[in-house]
Amino acid sequence: MPEVLAYATDDHNAEFHRTTITRREPGPTEVYFEIKYAGICHSDIHTARAEWGPAIYPLVPGHEIVGIVTKIGDQVTKFTVGDKVGIGCFVDSCRECEQCKAGHEQFCTAKPYTIWTYNSIGRGGQPTAGGYSQAITVEQDYVIRIPDEIPFEKAAPLLCAGITLYSPLKRWGAGPGKKVAIIGMGGLGHVGVQIAAKMGAEVVVISQTMSKKDDGLRFGASDYYATSEPERLRELRGSLDLMVSTVAAVADLDAMLKLLKPGGVLVDVGLPEHASTLRLSSLTSGNKVLAGSQIGGIAETQEVLDFCAANGVVPQVEIISGEDITAAYDKVVHSQVRYRYVIDTSTF
Amino acid sequence: MPEVLAYATDDHNAEFHRTTITRREPGPTEVYFEIKYAGICHSDIHTARAEWGPAIYPLVPGHEIVGIVTKIGDQVTKFTVGDKVGIGCFVDSCRECEQCKAGHEQFCTAKPYTIWTYNSIGRGGQPTAGGYSQAITVEQDYVIRIPDEIPFEKAAPLLCAGITLYSPLKRWGAGPGKKVAIIGMGGLGHVGVQIAAKMGAEVVVISQTMSKKDDGLRFGASDYYATSEPERLRELRGSLDLMVSTVAAVADLDAMLKLLKPGGVLVDVGLPEHASTLRLSSLTSGNKVLAGSQIGGIAETQEVLDFCAANGVVPQVEIISGEDITAAYDKVVHSQVRYRYVIDTSTF
Repeated sequence: MPEVLAYATDDHNAEFHRTTITRREPGPTEVYFEIKYAGICHSDIHTARAEWGPAIYPLVPGHEIVGIVTKIGDQVTKFTVGDKVGIGCFVDSCRECEQCKAGHEQFCTAKPYTIWTYNSIGRGGQPTAGGYSQAITVEQDYVIRIPDEIPFEKAAPLLCAGITLYSPLKRWGAGPGKKVAIIGMGGLGHVGVQIAAKMGAEVVVISQTMSKKDDGLRFGASDYYATSEPERLRELRGSLDLMVSTVAAVADLDAMLKLLKPGGVLVDVGLPEHASTLRLSSLTSGNKVLAGSQIGGIAETQEVLDFCAANGVVPQVEIISGEDITAAYDKVVHSQVRYRYVIDTSTF
Repeated sequence: MPEVLAYATDDHNAEFHRTTITRREPGPTEVYFEIKYAGICHSDIHTARAEWGPAIYPLVPGHEIVGIVTKIGDQVTKFTVGDKVGIGCFVDSCRECEQCKAGHEQFCTAKPYTIWTYNSIGRGGQPTAGGYSQAITVEQDYVIRIPDEIPFEKAAPLLCAGITLYSPLKRWGAGPGKKVAIIGMGGLGHVGVQIAAKMGAEVVVISQTMSKKDDGLRFGASDYYATSEPERLRELRGSLDLMVSTVAAVADLDAMLKLLKPGGVLVDVGLPEHASTLRLSSLTSGNKVLAGSQIGGIAETQEVLDFCAANGVVPQVEIISGEDITAAYDKVVHSQVRYRYVIDTSTF
């Protein structure tokens, strides 16, 4: 059983320290890969700080993971040693239920249900541990191939941030002739702007302030709005086909829904801690839609990587070392990262 | 200019009295028809009582209207004298905007905007007056043909209740292999149960109590649930593809959304007076959808009449006279009608 270096937190203070964890030898259909880079997602922070409920400590977060295959089981057909691979938010599911068969493994409805990459219980009964570590063992059907066209250190955020934006943009029809707003331009939003633009949509950003405007236009937005300038924001009334909200809390859902055309769709991918207020007449007046979206299945995640490779969608990242993780969490919370921290596991 | 009998209210007390109103002679492309029956919709009551804002008094409500053509303009091509016709919630719109061209005239975005059947200002600058009257003049493009297969006195509610339910059921895929819940079994819901069943879906009703269970099964539901029996309601968790809420206020949106499968849709067609509370995680956890829907366009309304004629969908109505209107309003508000009052205008 290989022992590998990792960074873990022992409690909700989320102060990370170097440690070692044990990974299992790959089973017949499993892949073992050396993790090279792992992104820091805001949900790592919520989980590590126990803001979404109790966590299993010691906790090794990380679900935006890329690396190189170094061992495979004898029945592995999809990957070979030396392949560039990745995993996202989950590592297994029942594989048999209606949701798994439809490619929505993240909503698996039968035991063992979706097994998340960390803070979950694996089939062997042990807690799962994520990407802030130097290797991982995963069933081949839950592994994504990383195309060579994407700089390896920048590919990791596509496994969560990428699929989180791609899935609703595709489902709700972002494309030529459609005007799409991305609400919030952080780790999720800055990828969403690029993806929506490459899908052919006219893209605008709605941020809290205008401070990231230049970046937004560089990522492919045609215009940039701020909730701090409500008069200008009103120009968008009735003009949008689709909005994707990446922020933790939409301040005023009813006001945002007014920006949609009749038939328009506002998709939330953020995870507010608190309940929101909504007038249902904001939806009925114009056959509008408020939808939620949570990552995507394995086949669609592969599609994201292939789409981003083919279209030059590349997250903007800052590479950090293992000992930077604790400080990085605070910077993410204060929106000081541009736009995703990626941990280089060779620094462990 | 023909003078016709009508029932009007002069203020928000909604006490109706007999009166006369003037209708215009039909213009070149207009149809004049003698109104035979008019349904009482809950929104008539909200409007007449000024619960949705100031109303234009004296007010003649009624937007579920059927009658017989007695005069036509010389360029009318779609109808002839003697035809059975009807109109619903609106009588005109700009005819040029994106929404009108797409068949969503109820969301017209250019002047004169959607002209509602009553409590609206017509192209001539005069307030519109609705179906609690003995005749009306309407542009032919906004008139619906009433198939002979539908008993004439029962056809009126299809012009509002029918399209209100048909449109979201069709848009969101009610049909074979789908399990659909209709929330609330009143004037809207009892038509929705029939339509969804005839579309081929498995239909359940979610009502406040079990008191209308027998009716629900007769209308085509396979099972009946009540929010007064929460334990039994829990059986539905994760099982529904689609829910259409016809009630004025969904007590607990988050609890209702739990009844949906991943990817499921809850459509609201009710018009709550107050804001609702919603956890956005109820949508993200399962890629769920909360949508609004408001009546439908002219082409789709014709489709409803044709669908109901072909499939034997017939509203259950109680015929009343003009002098019953005031009392009927109270009975509607107290859910004492089974299931729609229809005014016989020959009683005026």
